[in-house]
Amino acid sequence: MTAETLCVGTEILLGNIVNTNAAYLASQYAKLGITSYYQTVVGDNADRIKECVSMALSRSDLLVISGGLGPTQDDLTKEAVSELLGRKMDVDDTSAKRIKLYFDKRGKKMSKNNIRQAMIPEGARIIDNNNGLAPGVLIELNAKEAAKFGKNAKTAPMILMLPGPPEELTAMWESSVAGILQKYTGQVIYSAMVKICGRTESEVAELLDDLIQSGGEVTVAPYAKTGEVHLRVTASAEDEKSAKKLVKPVIKEIKNRLGNSVYTTDEDTTLEQAVVELLLANGLTVTTAESCTGGLIAGRLINVPGVSEIFKSGYITYSNKAKRKIIGVKRKSLEKYGAVSAQVVKEMAEGVAFFTKSDVAVAVSGIAGPDGGTPEKPVGLVYIAVNVCGQITIKDFHFSGNRAKVRNSAVASALILMRQCILEYYSKLTFGDNDNE
Amino acid sequence: MTAETLCVGTEILLGNIVNTNAAYLASQYAKLGITSYYQTVVGDNADRIKECVSMALSRSDLLVISGGLGPTQDDLTKEAVSELLGRKMDVDDTSAKRIKLYFDKRGKKMSKNNIRQAMIPEGARIIDNNNGLAPGVLIELNAKEAAKFGKNAKTAPMILMLPGPPEELTAMWESSVAGILQKYTGQVIYSAMVKICGRTESEVAELLDDLIQSGGEVTVAPYAKTGEVHLRVTASAEDEKSAKKLVKPVIKEIKNRLGNSVYTTDEDTTLEQAVVELLLANGLTVTTAESCTGGLIAGRLINVPGVSEIFKSGYITYSNKAKRKIIGVKRKSLEKYGAVSAQVVKEMAEGVAFFTKSDVAVAVSGIAGPDGGTPEKPVGLVYIAVNVCGQITIKDFHFSGNRAKVRNSAVASALILMRQCILEYYSKLTFGDNDNE
Repeated sequence: MTAETLCVGTEILLGNIVNTNAAYLASQYAKLGITSYYQTVVGDNADRIKECVSMALSRSDLLVISGGLGPTQDDLTKEAVSELLGRKMDVDDTSAKRIKLYFDKRGKKMSKNNIRQAMIPEGARIIDNNNGLAPGVLIELNAKEAAKFGKNAKTAPMILMLPGPPEELTAMWESSVAGILQKYTGQVIYSAMVKICGRTESEVAELLDDLIQSGGEVTVAPYAKTGEVHLRVTASAEDEKSAKKLVKPVIKEIKNRLGNSVYTTDEDTTLEQAVVELLLANGLTVTTAESCTGGLIAGRLINVPGVSEIFKSGYITYSNKAKRKIIGVKRKSLEKYGAVSAQVVKEMAEGVAFFTKSDVAVAVSGIAGPDGGTPEKPVGLVYIAVNVCGQITIKDFHFSGNRAKVRNSAVASALILMRQCILEYYSKLTFGDNDNE
Repeated sequence: MTAETLCVGTEILLGNIVNTNAAYLASQYAKLGITSYYQTVVGDNADRIKECVSMALSRSDLLVISGGLGPTQDDLTKEAVSELLGRKMDVDDTSAKRIKLYFDKRGKKMSKNNIRQAMIPEGARIIDNNNGLAPGVLIELNAKEAAKFGKNAKTAPMILMLPGPPEELTAMWESSVAGILQKYTGQVIYSAMVKICGRTESEVAELLDDLIQSGGEVTVAPYAKTGEVHLRVTASAEDEKSAKKLVKPVIKEIKNRLGNSVYTTDEDTTLEQAVVELLLANGLTVTTAESCTGGLIAGRLINVPGVSEIFKSGYITYSNKAKRKIIGVKRKSLEKYGAVSAQVVKEMAEGVAFFTKSDVAVAVSGIAGPDGGTPEKPVGLVYIAVNVCGQITIKDFHFSGNRAKVRNSAVASALILMRQCILEYYSKLTFGDNDNE
């Protein structure tokens, strides 16, 4: 099966947003064993949408369109497709009810425009949207329609229309679309994700060079994220069992080479989740004292459902006074070493653990920029301290990029350092026990 | 002039990289007053590249191709274009010398493949690459070539080939390409951004329907963001002054209709920045007490450089005990109303302002899910309280979506409510003063 992507939206043509949907969809095709030769972007213009749809239907089996399902007059995708195919549009009652309910819940009146989001080409399959108002739409062309694009009943293409907001598109893909499409592709693709933290992409690429370059039936593709490298390990076979059997030994080999840099082989587990699970497994409570990251580390930890068992409170101590008054950093240390120093993050990690009676504490202080840098302490310098049951580790980092990039790098590094310190703490404990035997 | 973008590279079709080149080029066209209706991505395949190039030449004045200029057998852009036009390729001596020099400098031997990077279609203009090996190439089609694509001597299109690595492409654009293209376009585009908070996209669309639909020389295009709507207002004219003059009254009209829902008309100002600027302008210090948002509101505020003047500390009070001990929520209130209640966020906003001696405080408590919902208090229910100098506003929200979406919506709503409450506080103050006169 070949698929192509058509992203509709003048904001992409104006360069106001980067087309992440196209990249997401491309990676999902790959997972399903669907080949893709083209991606197109077109503006909110009915004639040009029709032109691109026609072109795509004549050369691909599946056309995935994202965007243009919103409530405004600009949103033309469904209308253009219906006109091109000669199908009528009708209000889908279930979708209309969902939309009305959405406004009722909020005590707001549904605007006239919103009913457009419930209009569906006849004969189309509706895909529920649990994160927004516009439902997805799947159309299988009939033989007569297919003939317009040089196809026949057997090669009739499909059109899938998805909402443009990335969080709606990805959620809909994962909850519904992937399952629907798998039935159309004969092959089963099995792919697993190996997530690695604390190593650069080039380190990982060097250690796994032969696996990445193998060209064999199992492919290993690395993707760099802030502080992390994700490896997608994929094989295709006639059934899932056979595909899994191909993937398994490769994952084992990756784990052997990378040791505990691998924090999960579960697609859905995030770094913060791995950290929270490690804390839960060891019955450790946790707290945060953040300066330049300003709450973002706590924000990541609180992403994880169930974190309330171990996270009770956290502190954003942005000013020197807050560092002193709230978590007991010494005035002398602030004067002698400055707020961005190993000594101060150490005292932050000690103080915040003490005052909140937490087992684990992470403390961050750094210069996120754009101002505040000096030759000795340039923008991008960040100190992170982790306190695990009184054992304190301090590290300095030198990040590049703008304020947002420095802060995001600091958050990822703090989570990675927490994980390392907890693992080391317990590995030493076990080691110590053995020594005493 | 109309331009379209063709990005060549299988890595984009596999979703391994996000196509930032297309977004960059789009924003550059807009700056030069060049209209763009299409973007395409195609893999490293000569036939498909030719197909896409033909299509583009038949419908646009300028085709900008990025990628496929590298040294490997996969890099086919120049070959495909030359074949399509029927032009020969020749080694460009200057480029060949530059490439050789590059390797000499590094003490390396130039590989045979690299000479391919100096091969140029005859009659083409070469654009130096100061950041890499592959030069850029500009071809103006002659009348005979133009005829193949339904054009004549007067409407003959141009092809511009740029290197794929983003840092090479952007550097080449800025140092050479922008200047070359400006000579071809007579027109200048001016566009401004109007950013709106606290209104839905469909509300905005209804209020501005005539402006959005006008079809006149000024276009108004809405883009929905979490809690915000952005409007791009664009006009083109012979010079910047005339274009500005067209845009100005439209912006004024939008402000008239939407009142202080418009938080900025500056492209680069974010919502958190508008809030911080409002606080700074009124000399107000600020603090946060967050439960389900877990530090993300503070995280947004601390995005803004210079926030340290007004933000000293913030609190993540996730447990009931933390709410009581750290910011003085009454045990009785927690028992009687529950942690997610109007009374508790009120006490959080009072307590945190009192203990930190801050003028403004925002407090959030809600059920982000996936667990913890009840029929009376379902997942998505969030209470937000804002305290401005003792005047407290409490609002309940009902957000939909997963945990991350509920939390992001809560963060945006908190920032918007802060802004509203501060504006109202001062409007009432002024009003009171007048009454006393």
